Amino acid sequence: MKAFDFLNTASATQDNKNGRKTMMLDKGMGLHAVDDLISTAGDYISFAKFGWGTAATMDWHLIEAKTARYRKAGIIPYPGGTLLEIAVANNQADAFFEEAELLGFQGIEVSDGSTTVDKETRRHLIKQARDAGFYVISEVGKKNPELDHEMSPAERVAEINDDLANGSNYVIIEAREAGKNIGIYDENGQIAEDELDALAANGIDQIMFEAPLKSQQTALILRFGNQINVGNVAHDEVTSLETLRRGLRADTIGKV
Amino acid sequence: MKAFDFLNTASATQDNKNGRKTMMLDKGMGLHAVDDLISTAGDYISFAKFGWGTAATMDWHLIEAKTARYRKAGIIPYPGGTLLEIAVANNQADAFFEEAELLGFQGIEVSDGSTTVDKETRRHLIKQARDAGFYVISEVGKKNPELDHEMSPAERVAEINDDLANGSNYVIIEAREAGKNIGIYDENGQIAEDELDALAANGIDQIMFEAPLKSQQTALILRFGNQINVGNVAHDEVTSLETLRRGLRADTIGKV
Amino acid sequence: MKAFDFLNTASATQDNKNGRKTMMLDKGMGLHAVDDLISTAGDYISFAKFGWGTAATMDWHLIEAKTARYRKAGIIPYPGGTLLEIAVANNQADAFFEEAELLGFQGIEVSDGSTTVDKETRRHLIKQARDAGFYVISEVGKKNPELDHEMSPAERVAEINDDLANGSNYVIIEAREAGKNIGIYDENGQIAEDELDALAANGIDQIMFEAPLKSQQTALILRFGNQINVGNVAHDEVTSLETLRRGLRADTIGKV
Repeated sequence: MKAFDFLNTASATQDNKNGRKTMMLDKGMGLHAVDDLISTAGDYISFAKFGWGTAATMDWHLIEAKTARYRKAGIIPYPGGTLLEIAVANNQADAFFEEAELLGFQGIEVSDGSTTVDKETRRHLIKQARDAGFYVISEVGKKNPELDHEMSPAERVAEINDDLANGSNYVIIEAREAGKNIGIYDENGQIAEDELDALAANGIDQIMFEAPLKSQQTALILRFGNQINVGNVAHDEVTSLETLRRGLRADTIGKV
Repeated sequence: MKAFDFLNTASATQDNKNGRKTMMLDKGMGLHAVDDLISTAGDYISFAKFGWGTAATMDWHLIEAKTARYRKAGIIPYPGGTLLEIAVANNQADAFFEEAELLGFQGIEVSDGSTTVDKETRRHLIKQARDAGFYVISEVGKKNPELDHEMSPAERVAEINDDLANGSNYVIIEAREAGKNIGIYDENGQIAEDELDALAANGIDQIMFEAPLKSQQTALILRFGNQINVGNVAHDEVTSLETLRRGLRADTIGKV
Repeated sequence: MKAFDFLNTASATQDNKNGRKTMMLDKGMGLHAVDDLISTAGDYISFAKFGWGTAATMDWHLIEAKTARYRKAGIIPYPGGTLLEIAVANNQADAFFEEAELLGFQGIEVSDGSTTVDKETRRHLIKQARDAGFYVISEVGKKNPELDHEMSPAERVAEINDDLANGSNYVIIEAREAGKNIGIYDENGQIAEDELDALAANGIDQIMFEAPLKSQQTALILRFGNQINVGNVAHDEVTSLETLRRGLRADTIGKV
């Protein structure tokens, strides 16, 4: 039972495992921090992304222990797309998928944020990951702001649709850890409405918006409702996001 | 005994339990983090506020375990005022006070930062909390910057005086987690001196200034001395604040 | 063995203990956080600085336990230079060195960031610390931006050379916790190239640049290569820095 349960701020539709999705960015947490996170906010996390190449700097058994904890809490752990991009550039994608499975990862992110990946390879990687039994999340956008700005909304939409047709479970809109000057955000981290309108035109059920800043999370919830899928949430902001979703924080109180 | 005790930077008047007050914002910490906080800086925390509605997203027994740890360390735990506002709006204030006591909270925050609470209700809530044995902290200010700017300094002072007359132990000046464009702070987080002058005119012994930014904490200490009551301090900034109070950091060295 | 070891992103020259240096800023961590840090990123930390006067606010045995953990992980712990400055101003330098050794610190930082220390005293402190068996790091720069701006690049270079001649193992370029409007950084935290050029003219092997922001770490790595010595890295950014050094993050991928 939750504290102050009689306030009834949660509802049956508010389920971060089977319904709306929340992806948390783990940029290198230790086991005590993971345990703290799961005990406080594990119910509200759908995916734990081991950011960019961080997993490759850590001991094998530590990563294995972390994925085990996430899985036990019903959270799908997956390595950052950057690491797969490096493996692909090295011609080591097969070894990557094998290692990811051995380490206990349940998801795979397919991206081309840091490197160039041709369409055929991208399609193949999504299919290969699906066939290997992974939950597949693909990411649209470039981590370099200049390259990212070269993508038109139409190109993003086309890529989203291709990815979903090819087997991605969800498509993430890139915003990096900082959430500024990239994707749907301007240099101050505010939403560029025309970019967002274009992306959302065909529905948002299988889109996950990276939204590291509270102001971004709030804006998305106020626009699309609290079922919106949100990613790149810092580990110490997951609880705050859940309060925004439920109208337990000033920014959304009485509005969700 | 403290490390480097011979430097004698602390003094008998510097007591965060019986003298000056420091309110720490707990926005969802787990037990390992709480234990770390208490072992490093527990002596310097007077109040632990479970920010806004965060407590209502967590397991009952986790909240109970957290309040027990704080109490044992001589720290008064209390739920964020937003949660009481929601209960009041739902006509569930009685149940709220009962639950807060069962969960081990020793303090109550009475606010109207997120909703409208009429004067009579506010007076009644303060009295009801006092009668139920809670330490009472009331908060002055609106979380929405536009509404907050509508309050004149005179209105704030009147509300402070009313609250204290009605039984509040301390009155907090709202600044939210971010400390910008609200209360005594301008949009860059710098102190608006005229606002501060007005509030401080009648004394500051029972006022607690929310001051999440180091620059704000420094400015308040340099102006009012290190006995100033400070609130909304992040858990990993409590030690830094104590060093500012004692002249153990460049910003205040030789000045306190 | 590390996870994803087959990607071969590390190399024998990439050794944060014997080669390049990374100094992490510990601003008051508890034991669970220290254990998490060491298990995730202990291999990538050369020095743990107990920031400014924080050590003097904590229990003796807690500091002793922390230094023991760092030493066991091959990390050199040292108290912030501000604390020695206070001891010097109090005429208690001898007691300071004695206490630092008893507490298990292996390094000493000699600075004049917060106070005025004449050249002769500075020279003597460096020598005294060396003679007592400490690893000595001296710091160049003023924590007050106005005073810091008064130092010319030539004065900084002269001080660096003096310190190294007098026995410092490394010289740190001050940037504080925030990394803005100080030393080699402008008010936005970007590198002032002329300042950096002047400092780097005589070699950077024994210079450590405080670089708390990711953009600063990236700029230094892209300019000097991944062997650059970096300091004031937040505890939860050590892993990110290591990924930047290895080309495991978009900002440096394919460039190191």
